[in-house]
Amino acid sequence: MQIERYNEGISLKRSVDSGTDEQRKTVQGIISEVRKDGDAALFSYTERFDGVKLTDLRVTQEELNAGLAALSEEHIAVIREAAENIQSFHQKQQRNSWITTDDMGTMLGQKITPLDAVGVYVPGGTAAYPSSVLMNVMPALVAGVKRIVMVSPPGKDGKLAPVVLAAAKIAGVTEIYTVGGAQAIAALAYGTDSIDKVDKIVGPGNIYVALAKREVFGDVSIDMIAGPSEIAVLADKTANAAEVAADLLSQAEHDAFACSVLVTTSMELAEGVSQEVHKQLELLPRKEIAEQSIRNFGRIIVCANMSEALLAVNELAPEHLEILTENPMEAMAKIRHAGAIFLGRFSPEPVGDYFAGPNHVLPTNGTARFASPLNVDDFQKKSSIIMYSEKAFRANSEKIASFARLEGLEAHARAIEARK
Amino acid sequence: MQIERYNEGISLKRSVDSGTDEQRKTVQGIISEVRKDGDAALFSYTERFDGVKLTDLRVTQEELNAGLAALSEEHIAVIREAAENIQSFHQKQQRNSWITTDDMGTMLGQKITPLDAVGVYVPGGTAAYPSSVLMNVMPALVAGVKRIVMVSPPGKDGKLAPVVLAAAKIAGVTEIYTVGGAQAIAALAYGTDSIDKVDKIVGPGNIYVALAKREVFGDVSIDMIAGPSEIAVLADKTANAAEVAADLLSQAEHDAFACSVLVTTSMELAEGVSQEVHKQLELLPRKEIAEQSIRNFGRIIVCANMSEALLAVNELAPEHLEILTENPMEAMAKIRHAGAIFLGRFSPEPVGDYFAGPNHVLPTNGTARFASPLNVDDFQKKSSIIMYSEKAFRANSEKIASFARLEGLEAHARAIEARK
Repeated sequence: MQIERYNEGISLKRSVDSGTDEQRKTVQGIISEVRKDGDAALFSYTERFDGVKLTDLRVTQEELNAGLAALSEEHIAVIREAAENIQSFHQKQQRNSWITTDDMGTMLGQKITPLDAVGVYVPGGTAAYPSSVLMNVMPALVAGVKRIVMVSPPGKDGKLAPVVLAAAKIAGVTEIYTVGGAQAIAALAYGTDSIDKVDKIVGPGNIYVALAKREVFGDVSIDMIAGPSEIAVLADKTANAAEVAADLLSQAEHDAFACSVLVTTSMELAEGVSQEVHKQLELLPRKEIAEQSIRNFGRIIVCANMSEALLAVNELAPEHLEILTENPMEAMAKIRHAGAIFLGRFSPEPVGDYFAGPNHVLPTNGTARFASPLNVDDFQKKSSIIMYSEKAFRANSEKIASFARLEGLEAHARAIEARK
Repeated sequence: MQIERYNEGISLKRSVDSGTDEQRKTVQGIISEVRKDGDAALFSYTERFDGVKLTDLRVTQEELNAGLAALSEEHIAVIREAAENIQSFHQKQQRNSWITTDDMGTMLGQKITPLDAVGVYVPGGTAAYPSSVLMNVMPALVAGVKRIVMVSPPGKDGKLAPVVLAAAKIAGVTEIYTVGGAQAIAALAYGTDSIDKVDKIVGPGNIYVALAKREVFGDVSIDMIAGPSEIAVLADKTANAAEVAADLLSQAEHDAFACSVLVTTSMELAEGVSQEVHKQLELLPRKEIAEQSIRNFGRIIVCANMSEALLAVNELAPEHLEILTENPMEAMAKIRHAGAIFLGRFSPEPVGDYFAGPNHVLPTNGTARFASPLNVDDFQKKSSIIMYSEKAFRANSEKIASFARLEGLEAHARAIEARK
């Protein structure tokens, strides 16, 4: 890996695939067909894009059970424990409705209500990850969402991957449809005979899924449109080069656009990591992918001191940040932008990817400047509560009417004065 | 107003103006010009669209002071008191970062950080409302945002409305630029020599502003794209027809697309309100607007009983909901979807529009099903914190590696095993 000296204004931003005009038109066409023809359109697109002719989209209880039965007991136990950890962490995000009152009898507050229905998109093929099912479903469950609908495209046999069904079963999802692509997003947003519409759609997908989410945004809520995954490791001379290299490679194996960056105050570590990356690369089953990612997006940035390194990390605003320094907590306090922060040697990123409990759906491509990990708030909404007593009303009515007239809204003032 | 019996499946949804292809192209052109030419493009578009030739975009401290001086002491006092109420309510939304620890020494948590910089768009002309300045700025201030940037298009004299400057001064905004339209959104999203870029853009605007926000969405965060304003009044026979009518009209005067709906269990009230609306309409200065709104979007829906009426209100998912029943609190508990809920006779909507403290930026067009009033969370983001102790790591490392291998990600497993 190439080693560079820190220069102000670094960025992890890569050109995200935002689709061609033609892809956008295709997606718009699919959405309008599904709105017009409902299930018939879903069956027809499934035949065309997935190459299977289905007559029923709903996954049966038997198929769910079979998915679970296909897994080893060891794997079931691990997924269960991960689900419990995820549930437990997200329960701590849960908030209560609140009200305040004052001497005049005014009551103001904020009511928290879970969304009625949420759709979770799960990609098919090799990107069908059980951890992704857990991470998208558990926060919705904890938030109190009553109806959680999973959709995923069928494999060549017309079925969903057993491991995905097993994760759904463990998470407690019971409403699952074998449909993917833009047509699945359209069905979730607008409803068909088989699939009732939802209020929000979450989960990763290919460019057609991402474009479809953009199109239905506003009619339903969506999560962020995720870019390729990324990690920044902030390390000083106390870090172990072989461990840092392994962590960078665990990100790089995701896909060729994944991005792994080391920010360090130690030239010795920088050189050690560079060598280790190439040594370990040779031994990886996904070597080709990881190699491309490291070559195109891997960076080692050497900083003069820790405050420069912290500046660099905040400029990067990475999705994942590992802090492998003598005092990780001290550094953490100064991080302003990062999706998830992993502290110390014993918290390599995979600890959080699968198991610890915090969500692995994180803001990518510099959006940690303004976006958050998927969390319980994403599945609830707030309503303001306003109750003025007669006394409070009388004490303030003239002021309120005066403000209304300042804005030229006479009927607003009269709604106040109608109470006199 | 026409009176109808309740029928399942009612909706407030109106066809929102989502812009034409031509408008979208215009906006894309403006954005790319601003990205290319920066300030020069801003000056040129301001001359073309606002008809004024500016040489400096930044509003001076003197102009801000002059704005305040143009206002009566009474109005200054009202705006100040409203600002204090808004600040006080939003302070109650403030959350703390938290961590949890367990016996193994694992530490998990959530760090809350304010956004670095936020842009607030304020429309020009007759839609330049001081209340809108307060409602968009105060939550950002309370959230701890250090840099709040206001933009607004100049009037024919090349200046901003004094009342808007006064509200900005009272709210404490000091960085203000005389620029509007899609060009202002582009400058906020990507930066120019005069205007540093921000992380999030909030505030209402015309169709070009809305389209520009949609275009930059993803590169920066945006608030919801707001539709026309709406109110639902839930009332039983204890409500006063003249008061209900005045409340419906206060919504109707906003614009011809505003929507006012009465949902009631009392046919007598329905008839009384219908008459009162037409009587009061005659006396309104904005009679023509309100009349159009009532004719096209006004509805009186009579329900068989309170549970049917609550069903109707939840189907509507209104932006504003007034509850004028014998037991407003009892009804409130059953409301699942509403932006702001006003309880009882002495809480007509204008109490909350200007003064009480909760935000008046609310989800419209049925989006209260999944969206919330503008609030402090909108100006902060979360980062997950994960620190495993050596003991916790050793106890779980095999399980984590096993999960990684189940997903076919060998390098993830090796990052774990590198610590052995």
